[in-house]
Parts: sequence; C-alpha cells; structure tokens
Amino acid sequence: MMHSPWSALFITLVYFTTLSTATPQNGISSQNTTRYLDASLSPAVRAQNLLDQMTWEPKVGQMGGVRRVVNPTKTFNRTLYESVRATQNGNIAPAANYGTALQAVEVFNPLKEEQINSSRLHIPYIQMTDSMNTFAGGSGTLFPGAITMGAAWNIPLYEKVVTALRDENRVFGTYWMMSPEIDLARELRGGRVGEMFGEGAYHAGSFGAQYVKTMQEKDERGYVRVATTIKHFVYGSNNGGVNMGSIDSGLNHIMNDLAAPFHKVIKEAKPLAIMASYSSVDRVPVHANECLLQDILRGTLGFDGLIMSDAMVESIQDAAVMALTAGIGLELSPTQPATFPTLLTLTNDPRIVKHVDAAVKKILEIKFATGLFEEPVPSIENLGKVLRKPAHLEANRNISRESIVLLQNDGLLPLRKTNTTKVAVLGPFAALINAGNYANVNSTDHTFGNRLTTSLKNYFGSPSVQFVRGCAINNTDDASEIPVAVQAAKDAGLAILMLGSLSTGNEDPLSLERTDGEFIAHADLGFPGLQQQLLDAVLDSGVPTILVLSGGQSFVLNNSTLRANAILHSWFAGEYTSDAIVEIVTGIVNPSGKLPISIPQHSGALPVYYDFLPSDNAGGFPGQSGFPASAWQFPILQREVPMPFGFGLSYTTFDISEPDVSSTNGSTTISTVVRNTGNVAGQEVVQVYYRKAITRIETPNKQLVGFEKIHLAPGESREVKFSIPKDELGYWVNTKWYAEGGNYTFWVGTSSRSQDLKNVTTIL
Amino acid sequence: MMHSPWSALFITLVYFTTLSTATPQNGISSQNTTRYLDASLSPAVRAQNLLDQMTWEPKVGQMGGVRRVVNPTKTFNRTLYESVRATQNGNIAPAANYGTALQAVEVFNPLKEEQINSSRLHIPYIQMTDSMNTFAGGSGTLFPGAITMGAAWNIPLYEKVVTALRDENRVFGTYWMMSPEIDLARELRGGRVGEMFGEGAYHAGSFGAQYVKTMQEKDERGYVRVATTIKHFVYGSNNGGVNMGSIDSGLNHIMNDLAAPFHKVIKEAKPLAIMASYSSVDRVPVHANECLLQDILRGTLGFDGLIMSDAMVESIQDAAVMALTAGIGLELSPTQPATFPTLLTLTNDPRIVKHVDAAVKKILEIKFATGLFEEPVPSIENLGKVLRKPAHLEANRNISRESIVLLQNDGLLPLRKTNTTKVAVLGPFAALINAGNYANVNSTDHTFGNRLTTSLKNYFGSPSVQFVRGCAINNTDDASEIPVAVQAAKDAGLAILMLGSLSTGNEDPLSLERTDGEFIAHADLGFPGLQQQLLDAVLDSGVPTILVLSGGQSFVLNNSTLRANAILHSWFAGEYTSDAIVEIVTGIVNPSGKLPISIPQHSGALPVYYDFLPSDNAGGFPGQSGFPASAWQFPILQREVPMPFGFGLSYTTFDISEPDVSSTNGSTTISTVVRNTGNVAGQEVVQVYYRKAITRIETPNKQLVGFEKIHLAPGESREVKFSIPKDELGYWVNTKWYAEGGNYTFWVGTSSRSQDLKNVTTIL
Repeated sequence: MMHSPWSALFITLVYFTTLSTATPQNGISSQNTTRYLDASLSPAVRAQNLLDQMTWEPKVGQMGGVRRVVNPTKTFNRTLYESVRATQNGNIAPAANYGTALQAVEVFNPLKEEQINSSRLHIPYIQMTDSMNTFAGGSGTLFPGAITMGAAWNIPLYEKVVTALRDENRVFGTYWMMSPEIDLARELRGGRVGEMFGEGAYHAGSFGAQYVKTMQEKDERGYVRVATTIKHFVYGSNNGGVNMGSIDSGLNHIMNDLAAPFHKVIKEAKPLAIMASYSSVDRVPVHANECLLQDILRGTLGFDGLIMSDAMVESIQDAAVMALTAGIGLELSPTQPATFPTLLTLTNDPRIVKHVDAAVKKILEIKFATGLFEEPVPSIENLGKVLRKPAHLEANRNISRESIVLLQNDGLLPLRKTNTTKVAVLGPFAALINAGNYANVNSTDHTFGNRLTTSLKNYFGSPSVQFVRGCAINNTDDASEIPVAVQAAKDAGLAILMLGSLSTGNEDPLSLERTDGEFIAHADLGFPGLQQQLLDAVLDSGVPTILVLSGGQSFVLNNSTLRANAILHSWFAGEYTSDAIVEIVTGIVNPSGKLPISIPQHSGALPVYYDFLPSDNAGGFPGQSGFPASAWQFPILQREVPMPFGFGLSYTTFDISEPDVSSTNGSTTISTVVRNTGNVAGQEVVQVYYRKAITRIETPNKQLVGFEKIHLAPGESREVKFSIPKDELGYWVNTKWYAEGGNYTFWVGTSSRSQDLKNVTTIL
Repeated sequence: MMHSPWSALFITLVYFTTLSTATPQNGISSQNTTRYLDASLSPAVRAQNLLDQMTWEPKVGQMGGVRRVVNPTKTFNRTLYESVRATQNGNIAPAANYGTALQAVEVFNPLKEEQINSSRLHIPYIQMTDSMNTFAGGSGTLFPGAITMGAAWNIPLYEKVVTALRDENRVFGTYWMMSPEIDLARELRGGRVGEMFGEGAYHAGSFGAQYVKTMQEKDERGYVRVATTIKHFVYGSNNGGVNMGSIDSGLNHIMNDLAAPFHKVIKEAKPLAIMASYSSVDRVPVHANECLLQDILRGTLGFDGLIMSDAMVESIQDAAVMALTAGIGLELSPTQPATFPTLLTLTNDPRIVKHVDAAVKKILEIKFATGLFEEPVPSIENLGKVLRKPAHLEANRNISRESIVLLQNDGLLPLRKTNTTKVAVLGPFAALINAGNYANVNSTDHTFGNRLTTSLKNYFGSPSVQFVRGCAINNTDDASEIPVAVQAAKDAGLAILMLGSLSTGNEDPLSLERTDGEFIAHADLGFPGLQQQLLDAVLDSGVPTILVLSGGQSFVLNNSTLRANAILHSWFAGEYTSDAIVEIVTGIVNPSGKLPISIPQHSGALPVYYDFLPSDNAGGFPGQSGFPASAWQFPILQREVPMPFGFGLSYTTFDISEPDVSSTNGSTTISTVVRNTGNVAGQEVVQVYYRKAITRIETPNKQLVGFEKIHLAPGESREVKFSIPKDELGYWVNTKWYAEGGNYTFWVGTSSRSQDLKNVTTIL
C-alpha cells in the first residue's frame, strides 16, 4: 500500500452547497444560472447554459487538462500540478502506473473534489485515458493488446471484452476514452502496429465500431456510460515507418485507405470525439489542416463531435490559433508549456472566441452526456464489485485463446501430455509479460498474470519443465547462455522457444530493451539481439521445436526460422496469454486466430498488406525480361505473401463450398456451406472478399467485406450467410462516394490467400 | 558484318519526284499543297499545311510507330513489320542491338525510304530512341550511365558529353530522344535508379536542363539538332519500389518533389516533348490523369509540347480515348496490339478528331523543326566522321574519372606503383562491363571497352595481376571459388574486389543474373548471390582490400563490408570506367565524384534522401523514452546517413570558409573561399543548401540550390560565388508558388552532411 503524500488534501465535498452562490455572468438572468445542473435537460441545453456563465479563462481551461502530472506511485509535485492546473483544468488524465486501482482513486478523488470547489461554477474534471486492453488505475482485468484481439476475428466475443473494459473504467472514474485506435497497420515498421486492430479497413472498422457502440451504450439513466475518441485521423502510412513521420498521401489514398475505418465507425457508431494525428499529411500538419479536419472530416464524413489534438509539439501562439481554427478543440500536451493557454490573451478576437465557445460547448456536452455533474467522483466501495468480475475474466480467457495464430505445424502439435515427459522452455520472453507500452503492467512483475514458464509448470508439473533464458532481449553481445539452452533442449527432447520484440511503458525496468511501441520504428523486422542466433542453435540441434512469437508486430521469418516444427504468434500478452499458449500447444484448445497483419518475407519487401493495388505487384513484362511476374526480383517475391492477412491454421480442416450469390434491391447475400472435415471440434473464420471489375480509379485486387467466426463439431456443417449492403461496395473518388452497378467478383474462404478462396461473379 | 535479309528492299528514293502528285485534301487549294515542303516557313505553318491535307488513317498512324519490330542483328519479320506499320507509322524506334552503327543504318535507311514512298504525302518516319549514354545503333562512344554522370557533379563537362551524344545520334539518323530521365531516385529499391541523375531535384534538374539545351541547340540552318523528351511525369516514389507500382502522393508532394525537376527543365530549357509515367498516381493512371497532364503540366507548369505515353499496358478503345483526352498524343506500345489504332473507327467523333489533330500537329512540328523533311535519311558516309571523334572520347574519359566516388580510405590509397608488385583482382564484376539495361553493349563482349582485369594488366603488367572470379553474380550456391580467391589475395598481398548488381538488356547472355534495371525492384540492397560471402572471406584473411562497387544503384554496406581499407563506387560503366578506376586507385587521378544518391544503412531503413522533412527524423520524445532522438530505434539509425547525397572523399583536403551573403533585388549571392590544404591537386564540388525558417507547409530540413566543381592546386585558394535568384527559393502549396521574404539559412560545404557544412543566416 502506497502512502499518499497528500492526506491533508482531502477536502470536504462542497459542490452542492456552494453552487447557488455562483454569480450570473454575461447578462444571464439569475433564475437561469442553475439550469445546467438540471439533469432532466439535454446535454446541449445544459452545456449552453453553463457556457453562457463562463468567463474566458475557465473556457480556455476546459480545452486542456492536468495530464501526466499525477502518478499515484510517484511523489506528488504540487508546484508542477498547480502550474498546469492554472490554465488547463478541463480534465485529469492519469498516466499508467503499476499500482492498484484503489491507490489511484485515493489519489485522484481529493484532487477532483478540490477542483470542483476551486472552480467558480464547480465544473468537475472529466477523467480521460487510453484504454484498449486495461485501464490506467492498475489491478483491473488485463486483456491482451488491440492487435491480439484483432487476431481473434470474433466481434461478439470482443463486445464482451469491451463491456468489461467499460465497466471497470467507469467504476474507476474514467468517463472518456482516448480510444479506440482504428488506424490501419499497413506500415509494419511502425512501432504502433500493436495498438491497432490490423491492416484491413473493414476488419479494423468492425472492431472500432463495436468498441464505440459498447462504450457509449446508455445506462438506465440515459447517460453515455463512457465517451470514446477514435484516433488518429489520419495515421499509419508514415514515411519510412518513422513514428512521427510525414504521410505523402493524396486524397484518394486517404479516403479509400487511411480514412476508411473512420468512415465506417462514424457512420455506424457516432463516436463523441476524434483525435487528430500528429503527422503532417501531404506536408500540412493535421493539427493545422483545415482541408482534412473541416472539409473532409466535418464535411464529407459528417463528423460533428469534438476534435482533439494528439501530442502537439508546437508551443507558440500561432500554432494554437492554426490548430483552433483548423478545428482542434482540446489539446493533449505531452510536455509543458502547452499551446492552448496562449489563447488566454486573445479574448478580443471574435473569430477566436467563436471557435473557443464551439469547442468548449462540445467538451461540456460530453461532461453532461456522461453524467459527470451528477457523479463527479467515483465511489471507492464500488471498485471491488466490478473489477475482475468472473464474466470479465472469462471473456479475457476466451479472447486470449482465440487470438493466438498457428502459422506452421508439421504435426508436432498438439502435444500429447502422455508423450511429453520433459519440456525445455527457452527465450527471454518466456519469463516476461510483453503487454505493450499502453498496458498498465510491469513486464517483470510476476505477481500479475502468468508467464509461459509458470503456465507450463502448472500444466506439466514443475519437475518436467526447465527454463533457460538463452539470451537477453536486445542489447547484448553475450552468447554464453546459448549452449546452456541447447543442452536443455537436448536433455528434454522438446523445446518451446518464446522470442519477440518488447514493448513496455517508459518506467518499466526493461524499457531500454524495447524495440517496439510508440515513438519507435523498427527498420528490421527480424528478432532483436541474439535471439535469432539462439533459435538457429536450437534448430541446428535437431530437437523438435515450437517457436512462439511475442510482440505487437509482424516478424520476418527467414528460412532458418521456418525449420521450426511449429510456429505460433501470441502478440501482445494479457494475463491469460501464457495459459492459452499452453492450452493450444497441448490441444486443450484448438487454435482459431487469424493474422490481422501480414507476415512479410523481407524487411525491404514492404508494404505487403493484402489489399494492394494490382499495379503494386507489377514488375514489368515477364515475357521480355525472362523473370517471373513478381513485385520484387531480388529476392524474387510476390506481393501476396504466403502468410497474409486472414491466414491461420487449425488442428482440424474445414471445407468451404462454392459460394452462392443472390441480390435484392438494397443488399447482396453471399452464402456458403462450411463443414468441419477433421477429427476435432474447431472454429473457423469465414471471410468474404470482393472486387468490382471496372472502376473509375485503380482499386485493390480484393477487399474484405465480411467475416464470421463459427464453431463446428467434427463432421458438422453449417450454412453461413453474409448480407452486404450495396452501398458498402463503393469507393471514393476525391470526396464523392461511388457504389455503382456492374460486374463484381466475391470470394469466400479461410484467408486472403488466393488458394484459400472460392469465387462467384455476379452483375449488381 | 551482318548479311541484310532485305537487299531487295532498297528502293529508289522517289520522294521529291513523286511529291507534286499529291492530291489536295480537305478543300485545300492546289497551290497550297506543297507549302509544307517550304523550309523557309515555320514548323507550325508547315505542320498545319500538312495536317490540312491528311486523311484520318495517316493522322492516327503518326501517333504510333514501328517500335521494337526491327533489330538489325536479328532476322527481319516482314509480316510483323507490315502489320504494325499499317496503323502505326509516324516513327521508327530501334531497339538497342549489339551490332555496329553501319549495320543498323544499312537496315533502317531502306525502310525509311520505303515509308516515304508508300506514304501519299511522303511523310518520313522520325527515328526516336532513348539515349542517356550511348545510342541504339551500336559502336558509338559508350559513356557511363546517367547516375554515373550525375556523380561527376560537373555540368560544363556534362555539356561536352551531351554534345557528343547529340552529334553521334544525329549522324545515325535519330532526331528525337526519349531522354532525359529526370525522375528523382528517392526510392532506392527501384530498378531504374541508374537511369536517373540522382535523388536531388536541383541536381537532377540541372543535368536535365543541360541535356535538353544541348540536344535542342539549333544548327546553322536553324534546325533543332535533336528533339528531347523529359520523362517520366511523374515517377520514382513507387509503392515498395516496385517498377510499375502505384504512387500514393498528394499534390504538395508531387509538386515539391517529384515534379520539381520537370518544373526546372521546362522553365529553363523548353523540351519539345514529355513522357507520361506508366504509374498510377493517387490511384489514377497518369495516362488517363487529366488533373496531372492538363491542370498541372499544361496549366501550372506551362508545358505546351507533345505529351507521349510510356509503355501503355491497356489495349482497349476506352483506354485510348481516356489517354487521348487526358492529353497523350503519341503512344509507345511495348507489345502489340497497340491502343491508339483503335481510334481509327472514331473519325466521326468531333472531340476525338480535335484531340488527334492537336496531337498530330505537335508531332509534325517536331518533324519540321528538326529538318526531317529536308534530310529524312542519314548519309552513311557521315557516320565515320562523327562517331568516336577524339573530342567525344576525351569527354568520356574525363567524365568517367570524375564520377567515381571514394567512400572510404584508411590511407591505403593511392597505391604506389613501386610498392605494388602483385595484385589479386577478384569478383565477378572485374571481368564484365556493367553498363545498364539501356546501354547498347554486351556485358561479356570483351571487344568493346576495358574490363577491370584488362585495365589493371595494362597498368601493372599482366604477370603482376591475377584474376579469380570468386563466385558467380547471383543465382548460385557454388562457393568453391571463394577459397581460390582468398588464396590469390594472400599470394598477392593486395586484393581489389569488384562486386555489385548487374543490369543488362534482355538479350544479354547474363540477363538472368540481373538484379537491377527496368522491370526490377530489389527488396534487398546488399550484394546478390555469394558476393558478400566472398568479400567477408577476403576481409577475414587480413589482406589489404580495395572494394569497388559496380551498378546503377546504392548498396547497404554492412559492418563487415566497412572493414575494407578502401571503398569506391564506380556505378554503371562506360568504356573507360575500368581505366578510370585504375587511374584513381594508383593516384594518377584524384577522385572527385560525389554521391548522387545516399548510401542507406539497412534495406528497411528507407527512404534516406538528404532533403527529408524534419518530422521524418522524429521518433518521439527522447527525454521520456530513454532512447536517443532518431528515426529508427531498431537498429538505432538517423535519417541523415553517414554517406549521404553530395558525399565523396579526395586524396587532398579542402577548407571552405564561413560563407558571406549579400542580396540585391532579384537575387542572393553566397560566396565562400575554398582552399586546397593538402599536398596534391584536386577537384572539389562546392555545394550550397538552404532552408527558410517559417513556411506555410512543412519543407525539407535543407535543399540544394547550387553547386560548382572547381580545381585547385595544393595551397591554392579561390573564391566561389553562387548567385541564386530569389524566385528559386520557393515552394508549392497546391498549385501556387510561394517565394517569400523571411529568415533564411544558407549552408556551403563539401557534402550534405551537417559536419561538412558551414552556415550563414539572413533575412531576405
């Protein structure tokens, strides 16, 4: 238990008692001064009433918050806190900490109460945080990362996960998510891939829409349970994969690729906020990009919620004005000084005032919509009732099982317990929890979540399992552990190696071993440090070997690596990921994860997303050059990789019939019969792709337009139908959406690979 | 001597005798039917007169040609030729062949004469070809490739080269170049990098403008000596480096980067034609891209010459109409059927007729401007007077010497002849001429141009030089030669290894060993095949080693490679490149080449062009992450590479003083004093870069805006002045050019590296 340095801070809640003393402002009649407190009125009416009574400084204050200046596990710096709070006091945004939720609430509640009391109109902070798989409070359910859940390809299961995340966040006092991230992971060198759902617009958009719908679902009182922020508009094709790198893209590429999940989520789920990217797009920083934020986002995509900044690195008044007039209404400042407080001196500029009023109104609407004024400080006693509820843990176990992707298996898997007397578990990741830099967990703290070593010992019994690390994660030249690992493999007769790329928070003990996460780009998609050398040595020994990949990224699997008898990707871990790996390796669970991002064949053979344009696979004229038709000639590689988006193996086999197509006015139905032709029960992700034959601009070779995960017993078969609205089969030319009649091809199958698909053509 | 299969083809020249029988067409009065033959009239008037007399089929015929169907070293396929000529008869475009110019002229002249006679209005073919460093006839002067000459950074010397190329082409009968290629080599994985001058817009634009000015210089009769075609509008940032890959770029990226050399060359040199790229840009194929071809090229950049296609892969009438209406006036069809002959049935469509008339008029203007009607067939006897003139060979020797870039030297170079008794020359490229796929030379034919083995034997004497290939170029697993090579190195006590990446024509005996050239992309920028293994083995032996790179591309030099005592890049070879390597290695010539493209550090750490945007080097917040500020964190790499654009070593040292800046109304003068502070004479390329502090959009960290190569004796110093028009210091925001006042920084120095530059700031 942490000792709070500010028990003296605990201030009596004086909110309701002092409220009636508020002085009317801006000529508002006195009987109207309390309308914003009337919970029966709409958020818009309440927000306008409150706004009308606010002076300039509190308005500007709402556009920022006390962000990253309070960490419950660190000494509180009151001077810093007050210096920020003086001009940025709309929200409180806790940084991830490795303590408990209780510790955090005990720290944040007094600060929230103090803020209410010191604000003339008693406007509470709204608590905001990123939350894709856990929350900043600590000790909640630790789900696996976004990319991991994207690998489950199971939206109904994901809904249960988000319900759990929502309820744990709400009870902790977080009413506003700076999530979901719906950027497309098309640039595999970028360090934020693991924060995303994957490379496909329909796939990521489906997860994003579900997140927003579930989070923003209204409670019995009509309050939005938790507000959401879709982000980052637009991000993910950054130059060289560099984290803050520029994006060269033109409008058609933006609209059809980068913005496509935003289009889907805005249309289907109406998120209350959106975060602008910190990139520059076609040389114009998004924070100052009126074309993107006003013309496209507000105009073409019809978004009318709040636009907030991502970390703004500019700190001059010009930048604040540019961002404000481009449409930014809330600043997330990673460091001080922030930008928006420079607006304080511009109270006489009517254009600035108008923009500030519009922004603050949207912020206040979110505060009213979420019921913040009625419940500004969470009740500590509710924490224990909601955190880590059995339903949350069950959803977590299930999504962990369904997200592991079996990439290769020569028949070694599943292991039979009776045949397996000893296991050598090797590799630095077998003793860690690699949960990503947004997860609230210390990678080396063994009190929370099992490591692979633990899970294996739990299953096989401690004496049967020998762990040898083999090498450090990254920064090392010391190969002395490798022979020890090889000997352990030989002694056991079976090796399970867990290798990967680490992503942690800045304060993690292993943070300097990281090769993935925000602020990072990996020019090399191989294994860091001596890990490949360790793997090669184990494989050279001839011992049967199971390779488990760890990390929120894709890896190049070279020819040596592909010698492994079995390869699984486990992505960013949650607390049950290691258990799930053991369940899959031993056949207790039949793997059903599918790749949410493609596995490239070379760090220079990028990009390789499945929905490439036909010309992107065109080297030239094979008849003349003597080369086969391929994208790259040295080495000779196709754009369609052997392990693409949607690919993943099972312990059973599925047969998918030739699809049927039928069409009504508004939609097209694709149906197929799926049969489990193997000996064990299993789940398959049935995927539907399409392409229109003739289009006004170049369009991808195929695009995902539906998927469903189904469970089948051995021999069982089932018809699966996809009803696809015709309006979804469109594309943007500049800012116009074309969903036209003509020849279409639809494919159904078990991955995006040509050989895994069956097609039907039709005229719509 | 080849035996022509068609001596019976030689038809009496009946051009002038039959001419007066031409029948008036389109109501033109009979006295006007011969105006187009009046050389005293302008090309525009003559073209209009001829056009007025033409029927539909010959008009459409002018928009194509007999391309790639005549190769003087192959059997003539009369059926194929006639089938193409029936509808495509404006030009004859010889493919490169490995015969002699005389052979080629003897084949082409009769075909030209036949065409004149069979054309009712006696319209000659115009002969077109690519020509960056040689011509399609064979046996002319073989200059090194475009990237090689770009590495010389010497525009006055390049003028002499282009004069030679021009005069050799003209005497061979080629009046129209499908050159220069002024695309920027910013995507180092692309196979066409060696066809380009380099990665920098000002640098490539300077070479391109000189090419056009010299080629199109009028002769004493007022004829354009040779027409030019700048290409490819726009190309070079193709997705994944794939040859025909799409370009995602938005307008600001296109205008400020890809189109920047086109802007410069159009403004300064008025090329008569431009070739559209075969890429799609922001999903719209350039051949059908009215925005790029009409709004930007014609409107914003003011180009009013002919727009021709690059290889068009579409073959339907729709594509022809789209291309025509987008602005394409001449088709280069790589294969049959071509697209434009489908226009033949559209004679009643007034919009099509109008576009065809406009296109044909521009083609005819070029035919009249170049004096084709007065000299339609070259005189064979002039060939010998012009080809390989001493001035041409001298220019060739000089540019070969000046283009080799010394990348690393621990003091081993220059070798002293007296100390060098034996040399082992190793590597497959030491016995080849690697001239690029557009050069008219057989890589293994030792009768034309020296190989490194020959040049070394010529200098050191045959007995002192032992050649061991060491390994094949690419497709091999046979490492048996490596120990032989190592032994030769040990025996000699000195190794010169020539390694690289091969680019040849399709018909070269080694064409299947290629890893570079058009239609190729290299995902890996290391050495193909077993070459790295050969190099490592030689370096492991400890024998002093000089590594010579060969190829029209950049290479990743890994830590093992960097152990070499000296490294030189020799690029695409001309006939004197090997001699020049020996002259430099032995100190007869002091190296003065500078990199026209940067040397990357990893195949995944791309792009690395010098003029990156500041955000492209921004990983994040180093203070928080614990990482140094860099673009990539695994491995940790900066965007500014150790061997960037403009970098190259010398045997002497130069001191460059702090620059002075002065300014008049129209231009800014930057001056600096350069001193040779070493012991030998040498040349240095003084480079000027700039950056404006505050701009409307994100602009590069620095941009080249001037360079000059100067020669200095030991101890000599000289002031160098650069006069920079203020209008050049601008940038595009969409289609508007901004060259505004404000704070500017100028740097002068010997490379684009920060440590090689001195700066001055000024307010303009």
